[in-house]
Amino acid sequence: MTDLKAYMASVVKLTDTTLERLLPPEKTYPESIHRLMRYSIFAGGKRVRPTLVMAAHEACGGTFGDQKTLLACAAIEMLHTFSLIHDDLPCMDDDDFRRGKPTAHKVFGEGIAVLGGDALCIFAFECLAKTGRADIVAEVASALGAGGMIGGQVVDIESEGKPAARETVEYIHKNKTAALIRACVRTGALLANAPDKDIQKLSAYADYVGLAFQVVDDILDEEGTTEQLGKDAGSDREKGKMTFPSVCGIAESKRYAQELIKKACHEIEYLDNRGYILNQLAQFFRTRIS
Amino acid sequence: MTDLKAYMASVVKLTDTTLERLLPPEKTYPESIHRLMRYSIFAGGKRVRPTLVMAAHEACGGTFGDQKTLLACAAIEMLHTFSLIHDDLPCMDDDDFRRGKPTAHKVFGEGIAVLGGDALCIFAFECLAKTGRADIVAEVASALGAGGMIGGQVVDIESEGKPAARETVEYIHKNKTAALIRACVRTGALLANAPDKDIQKLSAYADYVGLAFQVVDDILDEEGTTEQLGKDAGSDREKGKMTFPSVCGIAESKRYAQELIKKACHEIEYLDNRGYILNQLAQFFRTRIS
Repeated sequence: MTDLKAYMASVVKLTDTTLERLLPPEKTYPESIHRLMRYSIFAGGKRVRPTLVMAAHEACGGTFGDQKTLLACAAIEMLHTFSLIHDDLPCMDDDDFRRGKPTAHKVFGEGIAVLGGDALCIFAFECLAKTGRADIVAEVASALGAGGMIGGQVVDIESEGKPAARETVEYIHKNKTAALIRACVRTGALLANAPDKDIQKLSAYADYVGLAFQVVDDILDEEGTTEQLGKDAGSDREKGKMTFPSVCGIAESKRYAQELIKKACHEIEYLDNRGYILNQLAQFFRTRIS
Repeated sequence: MTDLKAYMASVVKLTDTTLERLLPPEKTYPESIHRLMRYSIFAGGKRVRPTLVMAAHEACGGTFGDQKTLLACAAIEMLHTFSLIHDDLPCMDDDDFRRGKPTAHKVFGEGIAVLGGDALCIFAFECLAKTGRADIVAEVASALGAGGMIGGQVVDIESEGKPAARETVEYIHKNKTAALIRACVRTGALLANAPDKDIQKLSAYADYVGLAFQVVDDILDEEGTTEQLGKDAGSDREKGKMTFPSVCGIAESKRYAQELIKKACHEIEYLDNRGYILNQLAQFFRTRIS
């Protein structure tokens, strides 16, 4: 069976080749925005979301590395990057570093950073539409909007400094992080024309895994070093962010993450061997040993 | 023949009813962003872009007010509104008023304004995708991105205070304004399954009309009153914006606008009576007597 690290490395390579091909060259006029788009896309992301798309696609009988799925992988990575650029803005989380590099607005200025995020978001929908699947465009957009990822970010910034409440943290994480993770898995499955009942199970897997991913992120922010994280350690606490450790402590957060991963894996037992990579990915999300 | 004002009034009514139906209620959690989306969408726009979509659709044999076209009308109005919200931000044009009302970031704060713009953009693609036409999603996205509307805005803010150059102003206006106008007309035509040669002619019409629209906007900014404009008169000049009057004077700008409209109308002569509304719209764009 393919080892997860090798699998992820293959997806990174294929996704990056696709992104390289799709994104206009840096010298394209107006240069600033095209430079920003590439700067942020090629800032060293692990391409976790494309890996989920491809793994779900293969688990449902799709072909590894097929062109439409790669278009979707690239598009979803652009959407993720767009959200990071806007989240880092001074009027939002006001972060100076991301993945160990200065954030987009520190390099290109705030105006171009807003527009660069917009451009990545828009271009992602163009690429997604080129799969010919309007249903997938609607699916991904629905996960990203005010009732999904953007809604999660709204509550995230509006909750800063407020008394922690588990319900609120769950809302933030489910929307800000898990909604797009769910869309990844569903996109992969839809591109393989998986039957509805399989898509339901994969969606449940993604919901658990997506929430776990963010709970672990909260724990890492408390326990990791700045060097490991590529951004300031303890920055959530400093900003008064509502996190799992802040509402229920580190120990309970770890137990919860473990429980979520167990539930996630249970949902895809029906896939048997075909679910191997998705299963490994869930474990990876818990430990984040990369 | 239908009078233009009555036609526009019908499109406004149908588009607004569609927007009302599509947009989540204000009380939807998280409330701030849902309130912002409605605040900005229902701020009194003339729905010029939906009128273009519908008029092109009918001119190509489509049915006035059909559901898919209304979805597209609503989506394109959301995209236009998203661009206005972001353009008005302090890190961009820093405008306090729009259509006589305080801008989104003045009412809801900068962070929620960025996210509200994002949410409208994303929701627009969701609605557009619900027409089932992935080709139209790709068409509109292509017009909006770094090689279109967003690119125009980049050059617009980067040109502030620089020596005026006609080539640059043409680039700004063609991309910032005309690209979306072109997408409107093409969307209407595509939804009517118009033949390629007709779509070519309508695209040329839209290119002329879109540029003229912005040239007239520049002239109005110089000659109009704050009350007429719903925003500060002379604000382009104050900000050192590159405009047509600033590169070639008011008289030449007026002559140019007239020439563009004439060329636009020439392109759609083949439509004969079916082109009546598009013809009237072109005239309206020149005079903007509303």
